[in-house]
Amino acid sequence: MNSFKTIEWQNNKVLMIDQRKLPGKEVYIECTTFEEIAECIRDLVIRGAPAIGIASAMGMALGAMSISDDCSYEDFTKRMKTISEHLALTRPTAVNLFWAIDRMNRLISECRDREVKEIKNLLKTEAINIQKEDLITCIRIGENGAELIKDNSVVLTHCNAGGLATAGHGTALGVIRSAFLQGKNISVISSETRPVLQGARLTTWELERDGIPVRLITDSMAGHLMSRGMVDSVLVGADRVASNGDIANKIGTYSLSILAKHHNIPFYVAAPTSTIDGKCLSGEKIIIEQRNPEEVTHMDGKQISAQVNAINPAFDITPADNIECLITEVGLFKKPYEKSLSGIIKKNQ
Amino acid sequence: MNSFKTIEWQNNKVLMIDQRKLPGKEVYIECTTFEEIAECIRDLVIRGAPAIGIASAMGMALGAMSISDDCSYEDFTKRMKTISEHLALTRPTAVNLFWAIDRMNRLISECRDREVKEIKNLLKTEAINIQKEDLITCIRIGENGAELIKDNSVVLTHCNAGGLATAGHGTALGVIRSAFLQGKNISVISSETRPVLQGARLTTWELERDGIPVRLITDSMAGHLMSRGMVDSVLVGADRVASNGDIANKIGTYSLSILAKHHNIPFYVAAPTSTIDGKCLSGEKIIIEQRNPEEVTHMDGKQISAQVNAINPAFDITPADNIECLITEVGLFKKPYEKSLSGIIKKNQ
Repeated sequence: MNSFKTIEWQNNKVLMIDQRKLPGKEVYIECTTFEEIAECIRDLVIRGAPAIGIASAMGMALGAMSISDDCSYEDFTKRMKTISEHLALTRPTAVNLFWAIDRMNRLISECRDREVKEIKNLLKTEAINIQKEDLITCIRIGENGAELIKDNSVVLTHCNAGGLATAGHGTALGVIRSAFLQGKNISVISSETRPVLQGARLTTWELERDGIPVRLITDSMAGHLMSRGMVDSVLVGADRVASNGDIANKIGTYSLSILAKHHNIPFYVAAPTSTIDGKCLSGEKIIIEQRNPEEVTHMDGKQISAQVNAINPAFDITPADNIECLITEVGLFKKPYEKSLSGIIKKNQ
Repeated sequence: MNSFKTIEWQNNKVLMIDQRKLPGKEVYIECTTFEEIAECIRDLVIRGAPAIGIASAMGMALGAMSISDDCSYEDFTKRMKTISEHLALTRPTAVNLFWAIDRMNRLISECRDREVKEIKNLLKTEAINIQKEDLITCIRIGENGAELIKDNSVVLTHCNAGGLATAGHGTALGVIRSAFLQGKNISVISSETRPVLQGARLTTWELERDGIPVRLITDSMAGHLMSRGMVDSVLVGADRVASNGDIANKIGTYSLSILAKHHNIPFYVAAPTSTIDGKCLSGEKIIIEQRNPEEVTHMDGKQISAQVNAINPAFDITPADNIECLITEVGLFKKPYEKSLSGIIKKNQ
């Protein structure tokens, strides 16, 4: 699906492309322990809600591999609990991390009567399945969302909700890819997405490789371009969707939703149903990760500002009311989201 | 007024601090010709509407110095016309550039009966006076605006409308400095202002030197902080004010004005009356400078994105309706601006 591998299970090792080094260098990191996977998630070697889910599941499988076959089921579950907790502590906002860990633990609890050796293999298969399913999910999201993207239109996207944020194809970029593959004449405006520049570094890299026309802007330019009629729709991913339709996504998404509303430009969110957190009633309940201020005051290790403090929330909350449509693998959802999402939330429980 | 010199006339040379190198290095550049001054304006060695005005006036004076005393008044005016045109071509948006050049040329036209040698000295004095007047103007802007800044409040500012953008004290930062000197407990949030990072590099540097509390954010964080009640007012400068009150200012200002309006946060603009362009009826008439896309795709000479195009408008237009109050050296102006500004516009003609 991609001309690159975001993450891959290869004979009991996990390979991932180091997203911190793109687009300059295409380097792959090899993880052999769950601790290394956790470090890669924390340090943004791999990022994007679905990709973080896949990585944590593979981390669980790597952790299981390190446990002796002779270990009792009780000791195995105890050990896996520690491993789950270690992986869960990496990043607080993307719900897919917890979704994947829960899914792996559910499998363990269903295997009470099996041998540990067997459970370890089942966990490995489950992690690989989570990745396979995510690719299929992204393709469905793309097909479901493509109808919303008009021919001869300009789509603004923020951060990177692409193949690098998933098993491939992407969520927001999956919709763009599918529309493009349908022969629609579309072009993309990618906001650079400070401080980590996922838009500048990753989204332009992915789209340029696929031959999809893309232009880069700084985050501050979006409103001006909207006021000049240069943006037809805004399309982003999500790190968590509350049951009322509020979403958490990369910092700057909220501002884009207000600006889109002001200019009567449709604002779409593309995400797998695994990103919907039924236990979370509204956006205020979502914990927003505060990252190191040096991400703002420094660039490439070099200080860009005076010796001052910085504020660095990694995400913000976009209220459901600003979201025209939520694009998932099972279809499009509209307001009121409490009602439209209730079926999936029941199913997910 | 400042602990640094933005620009200074020193025995027939012009010294300016190289703002491209701040805050890392405090380097001064010496100009001996009007061509060097033009280059410094174009390359952002000096920036900020009032500072550009001062620099262009000093460029005119340097140009005059290079003309022989024996030259006829007619040849002198011809030569000065060429010099004016060269300086006027540096940057299109800030009106202060044209205002200062016009003022210098008006002086020349009033000196028909004087000797060229005498006119050259008068032009030098006029340029230095424009700088002196700008400092006084900024102090008045500060005093007039300070009443709008509440005690124990947080002010968000964009780009750099400080001492570095003027002869000293600043316009927006002049208001903040004056409020701070009045003993008000205020703190500043500075948006970094991509692509050239005037907020991160210059505003934090100025405020930190003055001991005014300042925190840095990326441009995309402003809306989120407003939604969390962390911003009490927004205060920016302007590069041009149309007679209907629309303003041109650094790219990103328009978005901030929409976000402030959405969150019922007052949005203030501080500018000298020399920034009011009576000939310009509305914002649509203002030419927006499009700068080199490499300012967006590269940082410190290093490419940050894939090989893609970028859009790089240096300014945007904020409609008068979003502006709570225009702070000038002669007082505060409110809507409707066509009416409130008409007196000054007549006076400026």
